[in-house]
Amino acid sequence: MAKLEQALSHIDLSLDESVERLFSLLRIKSISTDPAFKDDCRHAAQSLVDELSAIGFQASVRDTPGHPMVVAHHDGPGEDAAHVLFYGHYDVQPVDPLELWTDPPFEPSIKELNGARVITGRGASDDKGQLLTFVEACRAYKQVSGELPCKVTILFEGEEESGSPSLQPFLEANAEELKADIALVCDTNMWDAETPAISAGLRGLVGEEIVIKAADRDLHSGYFGGAAANPIHVLSKILAGIHDDNGRVTIEGFYDGVVETPTQVLESWKTLGRTDESFLGSVGLSKPAGEKGRSVLELTWARPTAEVNGITGGYSGEGFKTVIAAQASAKVSFRLVGQQDPEAIRKNFREFVRKGIPEDCSVEFHEHGGSAAIQLPFDSEALSRAKQALTEEWPKPAVTIGMGGSIPIVGDFQSLLGMQSLLIGFAQSDDRIHSPNEKYNLSSFHKGQRSWARILAALQDYKP
Amino acid sequence: MAKLEQALSHIDLSLDESVERLFSLLRIKSISTDPAFKDDCRHAAQSLVDELSAIGFQASVRDTPGHPMVVAHHDGPGEDAAHVLFYGHYDVQPVDPLELWTDPPFEPSIKELNGARVITGRGASDDKGQLLTFVEACRAYKQVSGELPCKVTILFEGEEESGSPSLQPFLEANAEELKADIALVCDTNMWDAETPAISAGLRGLVGEEIVIKAADRDLHSGYFGGAAANPIHVLSKILAGIHDDNGRVTIEGFYDGVVETPTQVLESWKTLGRTDESFLGSVGLSKPAGEKGRSVLELTWARPTAEVNGITGGYSGEGFKTVIAAQASAKVSFRLVGQQDPEAIRKNFREFVRKGIPEDCSVEFHEHGGSAAIQLPFDSEALSRAKQALTEEWPKPAVTIGMGGSIPIVGDFQSLLGMQSLLIGFAQSDDRIHSPNEKYNLSSFHKGQRSWARILAALQDYKP
Repeated sequence: MAKLEQALSHIDLSLDESVERLFSLLRIKSISTDPAFKDDCRHAAQSLVDELSAIGFQASVRDTPGHPMVVAHHDGPGEDAAHVLFYGHYDVQPVDPLELWTDPPFEPSIKELNGARVITGRGASDDKGQLLTFVEACRAYKQVSGELPCKVTILFEGEEESGSPSLQPFLEANAEELKADIALVCDTNMWDAETPAISAGLRGLVGEEIVIKAADRDLHSGYFGGAAANPIHVLSKILAGIHDDNGRVTIEGFYDGVVETPTQVLESWKTLGRTDESFLGSVGLSKPAGEKGRSVLELTWARPTAEVNGITGGYSGEGFKTVIAAQASAKVSFRLVGQQDPEAIRKNFREFVRKGIPEDCSVEFHEHGGSAAIQLPFDSEALSRAKQALTEEWPKPAVTIGMGGSIPIVGDFQSLLGMQSLLIGFAQSDDRIHSPNEKYNLSSFHKGQRSWARILAALQDYKP
Repeated sequence: MAKLEQALSHIDLSLDESVERLFSLLRIKSISTDPAFKDDCRHAAQSLVDELSAIGFQASVRDTPGHPMVVAHHDGPGEDAAHVLFYGHYDVQPVDPLELWTDPPFEPSIKELNGARVITGRGASDDKGQLLTFVEACRAYKQVSGELPCKVTILFEGEEESGSPSLQPFLEANAEELKADIALVCDTNMWDAETPAISAGLRGLVGEEIVIKAADRDLHSGYFGGAAANPIHVLSKILAGIHDDNGRVTIEGFYDGVVETPTQVLESWKTLGRTDESFLGSVGLSKPAGEKGRSVLELTWARPTAEVNGITGGYSGEGFKTVIAAQASAKVSFRLVGQQDPEAIRKNFREFVRKGIPEDCSVEFHEHGGSAAIQLPFDSEALSRAKQALTEEWPKPAVTIGMGGSIPIVGDFQSLLGMQSLLIGFAQSDDRIHSPNEKYNLSSFHKGQRSWARILAALQDYKP
């Protein structure tokens, strides 16, 4: 029997013990936002170090100005083995409101829920259950073969639920130690209970605020109306000009670095069952509003956008005031994909705005962050190996998806460690993370372990 | 000597006595907004009734739910004489802050100020001094000839400074009694110290609020951006389309009822010395922003406008929020001229907005008032007679001007009594009305009386 098959079998046979180990971790109240649980956080870190050491990792608790990190290393089978960095977090969200929990949040159990067996407790899904799937996969491999298929570095964070203040400095200070061929991040959902998903694209973001000024005070629209520049008019005209009639952004060079999504990827998205109607219908809409001729999944996962997130000017209280405002402002954000350059977008947007400012008006810009998109190449070798591995484990083939929300760790791995990430998780959309009665499907925990065993096997000779 | 010359001469000779009569009126603390001065208001009304009765008017104090009106009638020289209604108000503004007054506000005196003799005290200009110019002109005529050139009705109000709550009901209840061939309103300024002015145009106003709704909740712009309709984009596009590149309003039928201002009127405005630079420069602007090729005076006095007075949508607090708002709204007002129909403008604007609403969005409209423009025809006989009369009195020819701010009484005379108004006043822009140290130039008081004598003579055979 091949090592992978042995490892999978071992995972199946030792599920009860691995659940017990998860329960032990879940009983630790590692709430990172509340200083009262500082010792609990360290306790969680230490218990993970102990577990990893038991499997043969060189593991240690590493201090930070906040809660500690866990870093662990395990050699691969040889010099040529791939090197993976696995990331998860051991801290959990607060439990309020406590009265809504059916069972105490730090007393885990297994229950029946809607015909499935689930592990309950704070952190069961986010992220203790998820991170243990990887640890248990390593344990099984080690148990059956005495080694791991890849060289493995593990990084567990204890501040993910409180904004990760120590993460960037820690990555910078330990870049050499942490850098690997690829990062594996386990903190995301499956597409549905039968379909595993890899998030391969995270859109970037550029935020800009523009303030257009005209007269040096608010004016009476009877006395000045028709003669004085109205900054709301100027602003409206500029904002209206950002998109053409086909929904494309008109700012010069905006699409530089944007690549078309391959047809086979678009085709695979069609099979996901998220239609324009189902996606938009959930919020009372029906028609995609952006670039014409593209599906909602392509529009939200693979196309750049310009959105006005806020606008204000003049009087907008009760009743009416016949005022010509002295200034009007808008907050505009751009979602970036592919190789779009945040600073070039910002520069070209400002140029675009300036062209619309008449002689009598002025404009001020305020910068609100900028980050490039994270996009695994559609033909990424690591991506296709992981997809194949997941497809062998689950009822339905794995899908490559995009994500709207950003996951800072992925950008940090890219920019600070020069490393791409595979975002693979086994959580379900009904796991109630951050809410009372959090749960993790037993099948997620079980097949998650099996998935990582398969992925480690698939990546063993991977080179970026 | 003709009767007018005799009356003018009598005015000159009895200036001291007329100033004494003004002083008597100024000593009455007829502050209409403060209930503590209720009896003073009635006292002021009664003293005016006494003065008018002494000249031969049938005068009476007329009760209202608030402060009383004064109504007085005097026959003309015969059945064919013109009938004028004169309007003024005897109530005054509060005097706070009292410590900024050089002299007690209700102890009038004559002083030198910048080389001119001025009458000081609360109400000296607004409106006791102004209304008495007309009463004194009548007195002089009566004195020298035993009659008035016209049939005269006088209406003095005691609530102008507190919103005129009783005025409309009073006009409606006494329409037959008050209706005349033309109304004369003395509550405005001269153009400058040497140039009398008649305000012949008051722009109308239509207020509309539009609320554009898209999704049934605020959306995350990462998750939905590029696919979901953004109501701020929709609103911006609609607002941007209201004006074309030449500053003209594009709403269908918007210019119906707008007449071009006659060249001679435009020429006369050129002589007023209010340039684009001087007018706009005072508020930090320099270039007229409305319809191209027209002066600021034409733009603000004789052209209709569309102005966005307020806009709001999404997040506009500190920092940034990547939200796609569920709704966005704007308050839009239109200034009307000539015969523009407020309800047609409102209807066509709503149609214009609806055309810009995509399938996924909806729009709500909220009405915020509507009133037509008041415009004396440029060839109005009463206007040209009054202008000629004023031109004979003052160093510089009288000018016909427009006004941005509305004067409700003029609309009420038009709509309730079917009567046009001539707005003629002798106040100066430095009279500090509503402020401490209010004053009225003695020359305004003196030549104001002479002006009314000339106007009464000029209108004696006027028929509308």
